[in-house]
Amino acid sequence: MKVLALAFPGFTFIDLAGPMQAFMMLPGFSSQIVWHSKGIVDSDAGVSVQATEDFGSCWKDPDILFVPGNSIHLFKQLQDDRTIDFIADVGSRAKWITSVCNGSLLLGAAGLLKGYKAASYWYTREHLSLFGAIPTDARYVIDRNRATGGGMTAGIDFGLAMVGQLAGEPVGRVAELAFEYAPQPPFGTGRPELADPATLAKTTEIVKQIMPVQELEGVRARRSTMGKL
Amino acid sequence: MKVLALAFPGFTFIDLAGPMQAFMMLPGFSSQIVWHSKGIVDSDAGVSVQATEDFGSCWKDPDILFVPGNSIHLFKQLQDDRTIDFIADVGSRAKWITSVCNGSLLLGAAGLLKGYKAASYWYTREHLSLFGAIPTDARYVIDRNRATGGGMTAGIDFGLAMVGQLAGEPVGRVAELAFEYAPQPPFGTGRPELADPATLAKTTEIVKQIMPVQELEGVRARRSTMGKL
Repeated sequence: MKVLALAFPGFTFIDLAGPMQAFMMLPGFSSQIVWHSKGIVDSDAGVSVQATEDFGSCWKDPDILFVPGNSIHLFKQLQDDRTIDFIADVGSRAKWITSVCNGSLLLGAAGLLKGYKAASYWYTREHLSLFGAIPTDARYVIDRNRATGGGMTAGIDFGLAMVGQLAGEPVGRVAELAFEYAPQPPFGTGRPELADPATLAKTTEIVKQIMPVQELEGVRARRSTMGKL
Repeated sequence: MKVLALAFPGFTFIDLAGPMQAFMMLPGFSSQIVWHSKGIVDSDAGVSVQATEDFGSCWKDPDILFVPGNSIHLFKQLQDDRTIDFIADVGSRAKWITSVCNGSLLLGAAGLLKGYKAASYWYTREHLSLFGAIPTDARYVIDRNRATGGGMTAGIDFGLAMVGQLAGEPVGRVAELAFEYAPQPPFGTGRPELADPATLAKTTEIVKQIMPVQELEGVRARRSTMGKL
C-alpha cells in the first residue's frame, strides 16, 4: 500500500499526521513525502518534516495520493501550476485520491473532483463547487475513489474510515481502539453551528484574513484558460 | 512561549502533532524539537521530522517540556539513562511538564510525577503508580504544572485544554473551532469499555506484544538504585 503525501511549505501539521498515523495500519504500508525538492519542509506548527522525494523521483502510481491543507500557504499553492499539474498527473493514475481540510481545493483545482461529493474546511467548503465538486458538510466523504476529510482534526476520522474501507471494518475497529480515539473536545465549539456567537465571530474574523476565497474564481479561470479544468 | 518537544526514533507521530498544532495557538509560540543529536528523526507513521537541537544546545528553561509516546520505541527509551536524565534535568526548570500517551512513563521514570495525577495509554496506565504517580483514566489531566494526555489522539483534547489554561478559555474556544474539532469516530471502539469483545481481544493481543510492561519494575529499580527516583 504505497501512500504518496504532498508536503508544501507551511502545510498544516495535523492534516498530515492524522491520516498518516491511520494509513500505517494498512497491510504493506509504505510512504513517500513529496515536494518540489527533497529535504526539509516546514509545517505550520513548529515542526519540520522531511520530503523524501521530489516531483520527478516519487512514485507515479501510488495506491493513495494524499494532500493536506492550510490557510495562506494552501492558497499560495493554488497559484503554483507546477504543484497543481503534479497533483493532476499523479491523480490520473493513483488508485485513491484523498485530502483533508482545504487540501480538497488543490484536488479541485487539479480537476480531480468534477462530479464528486467532497468535504473541506468549514469556511471554504462551499467554494468547492467552483471546481465542479459537490460540497458536503460531512466529517469525511468517500465517493467512489475520492476520499476527502473536513477541517484539520477530521483527518483522524477520515484516516480511520479509510482503514476500515481498505483493510476491512475489523481492522478499522482495532485501529480506533489502538489510537484510543474516544474524543472529549474540551469546549464543544468545533463546528460553526456548535460555537457560541462570540467564538464564531472571532474565528471567522481570523480565518477570513488568511483564507482569501475571493482568489478562487481567478484560480478556476486560469486553469480553465490553460485547458486543464 | 517556548515549547521544547522530545522526538525519539520511532515516536508516535500523532502524539507530537496534536499538541504542537494546539501550542502554536499560544501567544509568542516558538518551538524546538530535540533529540540526542540534531537531524532527521523517524516517526512510527512513515514521516520523519527534524530535530532542530540536541540535548546540549536546546533551551534549558522551556515554558513547556513535551514528551510523546510510542510502544516498543518508548520502552527502548526507558532503558536509556541519557534520555531520562535529560528529561529530569529540563523538567527541573520547565514551567510545564507534559506528555501524551505513554510518554508519561518517561516522565515517571524521570521522577517528575511523584504524587501527581497522570494519564497515559489505556494499556499502560496502571503502571504509572510504579513511579509514584496517581493513574487516572481521564482523557487528560492537569495537576498543578503537570499536564498529561491519554492515548495518542488524546493529544488534541490535551492540547486544546492547555491553550484554554494558558491563553484563556476564549482562545481555547476559538482554537477548537479553528481546528474544526467536532469528532465523529467511525467505529465507536475508542476505549476498552466501548469496544466489542473481539476488537478488545485483538487489540490487547497486539499491544501486549509491543508494550513490555513487565520491564517497568526493572526500570524503577535501576533508577532507584542510581538514586534518581
